[in-house]
Amino acid sequence: MLKRVVIIGAGFGGLHAARELANRNVDVLLIDRNNYHTFTPLLYQVATSGLDAGEIAHPVRPVFHGAANIRFLRGEVTAINTDDQSVMVQAEDGERTERYDYLLVAAGSVTNFFGNAAVQQYGFELKSLEDSLKLRNHILRLFERAVWAEDPAMRAALTTMVVVGGGATGLEMAGALYELFTQVLQREFAGLTPRVVLVEATDKVLAPYPVELQAAAREQLESLGVEVMLGSPVHEIAADHIILRDGRVIPTHTLIWAAGVKASPLAALLGVPLERGGRVRINPTTEVIGLNHVYVVGDMAYLEDAHGQPYPMLIPVAKQQGILAARNILRDLQGWKQHDFHYIDRGIMATIGRSRAVAYIFNRIKLRGYIAWIAWLGLHLITLLGFKNRLQVFLHWVWNYFTYDRSVRLILNDPAARPTPKTDPGTA
Amino acid sequence: MLKRVVIIGAGFGGLHAARELANRNVDVLLIDRNNYHTFTPLLYQVATSGLDAGEIAHPVRPVFHGAANIRFLRGEVTAINTDDQSVMVQAEDGERTERYDYLLVAAGSVTNFFGNAAVQQYGFELKSLEDSLKLRNHILRLFERAVWAEDPAMRAALTTMVVVGGGATGLEMAGALYELFTQVLQREFAGLTPRVVLVEATDKVLAPYPVELQAAAREQLESLGVEVMLGSPVHEIAADHIILRDGRVIPTHTLIWAAGVKASPLAALLGVPLERGGRVRINPTTEVIGLNHVYVVGDMAYLEDAHGQPYPMLIPVAKQQGILAARNILRDLQGWKQHDFHYIDRGIMATIGRSRAVAYIFNRIKLRGYIAWIAWLGLHLITLLGFKNRLQVFLHWVWNYFTYDRSVRLILNDPAARPTPKTDPGTA
Repeated sequence: MLKRVVIIGAGFGGLHAARELANRNVDVLLIDRNNYHTFTPLLYQVATSGLDAGEIAHPVRPVFHGAANIRFLRGEVTAINTDDQSVMVQAEDGERTERYDYLLVAAGSVTNFFGNAAVQQYGFELKSLEDSLKLRNHILRLFERAVWAEDPAMRAALTTMVVVGGGATGLEMAGALYELFTQVLQREFAGLTPRVVLVEATDKVLAPYPVELQAAAREQLESLGVEVMLGSPVHEIAADHIILRDGRVIPTHTLIWAAGVKASPLAALLGVPLERGGRVRINPTTEVIGLNHVYVVGDMAYLEDAHGQPYPMLIPVAKQQGILAARNILRDLQGWKQHDFHYIDRGIMATIGRSRAVAYIFNRIKLRGYIAWIAWLGLHLITLLGFKNRLQVFLHWVWNYFTYDRSVRLILNDPAARPTPKTDPGTA
Repeated sequence: MLKRVVIIGAGFGGLHAARELANRNVDVLLIDRNNYHTFTPLLYQVATSGLDAGEIAHPVRPVFHGAANIRFLRGEVTAINTDDQSVMVQAEDGERTERYDYLLVAAGSVTNFFGNAAVQQYGFELKSLEDSLKLRNHILRLFERAVWAEDPAMRAALTTMVVVGGGATGLEMAGALYELFTQVLQREFAGLTPRVVLVEATDKVLAPYPVELQAAAREQLESLGVEVMLGSPVHEIAADHIILRDGRVIPTHTLIWAAGVKASPLAALLGVPLERGGRVRINPTTEVIGLNHVYVVGDMAYLEDAHGQPYPMLIPVAKQQGILAARNILRDLQGWKQHDFHYIDRGIMATIGRSRAVAYIFNRIKLRGYIAWIAWLGLHLITLLGFKNRLQVFLHWVWNYFTYDRSVRLILNDPAARPTPKTDPGTA
């Protein structure tokens, strides 16, 4: 009887782990709530009508087409029992109990609202395809509203978008939004003067980057037209405005919350003490400290590097840890010693609209502007999963680059607004 | 002061009418509930994961980019007052009253359930992008369920799809579904044997086609693998089966209703007597009989041809009537005599999967099989609105043709499942 590996999450960590185990001598169950893998770094492109949903998502099943030892289960994990080695899954057909010999949890992260109920109520997130589509709908609806609004103050508020968070996600979102407005929407919505504000509580953007690149990123943002407000945490949030701690009031109907993430709530199901951000402390082998045969990788995992700093919540970390965890499981099955995690850090990069970006490569090379943007573009194209997606995204981008077209700016009504027909009671 | 033309509907009739009026000496308001035009003939491709939503929809605003005399309002028409010449619109920002000098109603058609509550409850429609996405979600979810179901009868029911209606829509849907199953899903969902049944109440498919092509269509469907049940109206419908009048029971969770359409309910707002299918009787000039300065075109309009037959509910009719109505409005403004509708019938065609189709061109040429399919493909590509869409759809098709890929088969959760943040009370 083959040993059974259960992997929770088909993100970068889980997917790469499963690929390592494909056609090996184990029985693998991969669980995800979605039937697709999301290329999360481009969610903001979907939110700003730059790419369509299908271009940044890839169905999970075809990835494991040739691997008979891997099964996929679409469902939500509701409990983990490390004593009898099983997980409970709310699947399409009701609740299932799935036994494991090895468990790999790679459920990623969720938006961190830091317990602020107003942010949670009014803030838009950028963590899933649904988040992006919801935000796209919202932005386009506001413009349809603004163009018919008679009160100039109302028009201004409807077309002002506030992005909170000076990390890569915040910068990318702010830059893409501003370009959507100036290059596309302004041509079609006469008389509107959109505004994008980036708010950051600390006094700098892109904290993990060298100081010169932080300054370059800020300059590029501002030269594009984005207003950057540093050192000013959000103090009050309402449906039609926000107030910063220094008293500045920004009339807006759109707050995009890119100010932080925390580990998936699945971490709490493991029953071990959690680190800051709800992360699970792991050994360098990626095994959870205090549990047997349980591995955690990626955003959910807390592991310190040689300098005592936790590894960042970045895709390359998740991917490399996922691969290591899978190989360690195979080693353990052979009775071999497991290997430790050694992060190969190729660098970090962030984009700020067409031709604008910063990149810090191999902790050494600093790129900014057009050359950094080209590097960013190339990296994303080669990382995108699936050849067709890659080709399509590339064509889309080339097209956008020369035409500023945004043909996917569709306001899709909620497909489930009418009660879903032909669905059995147990399925909803 | 310019005369004001209000056009309701940005489908084929309304959009072509508005294009005729672009940069002419009138003030045009185009109203649609969606901010995009839908290429309806390919909705079944979205439902079967062949194309992504953005590939068959095109935003309305860029179409009128260079036309300052055309404004667009996204909203739902709730009342038409032909006495004081105004329409009421439920828009993003509340209810608006819009005055007109000329009104053109081109709101198309809706699914005709023929008053059958069970069909309405359980049947899936194919009239909008939302319908297609809902059906796509449903089909893919059933497969995710079926692959884990232990009862063979349940597995079979979950993977049996019934299409009701032997018109072009029904045939296209049945063919595309079967190809999705056999070419794509069967490879990924081991052990499932999907089944597609086409049910038609009369004894033939494609009623408007010559008898030889009806037979050819049926043969092609059956050679593909679709079960065709003719002369057997649906008698009873439930969540997990349907029963035909001849007693045959088909266990299924999916009933796709392609058995008929009727005029948009907006027709009733005009206050004139309606013809069969709720259509509005018009003069050959496309003016509504009994009303002044009100035009109706396309699926909503009832006009008989020289043989006393009503013009069919087809895109070319809508398009040609829309153009004529716009030109007649301009003629009327000049005090000129309006022209009558003369339908230029280039033919009809229907596809039944890859390389299978029938076409009846100029009421003379009968094509079937591969050559008809090529004709169908070419026609759709040149009709698709917008160059980028055309290029993308073409690439997508070429790709699918050689690989049987279906990369957009994403189960998207309802983006509005969580209460929408930052939306004012009046906006929902």
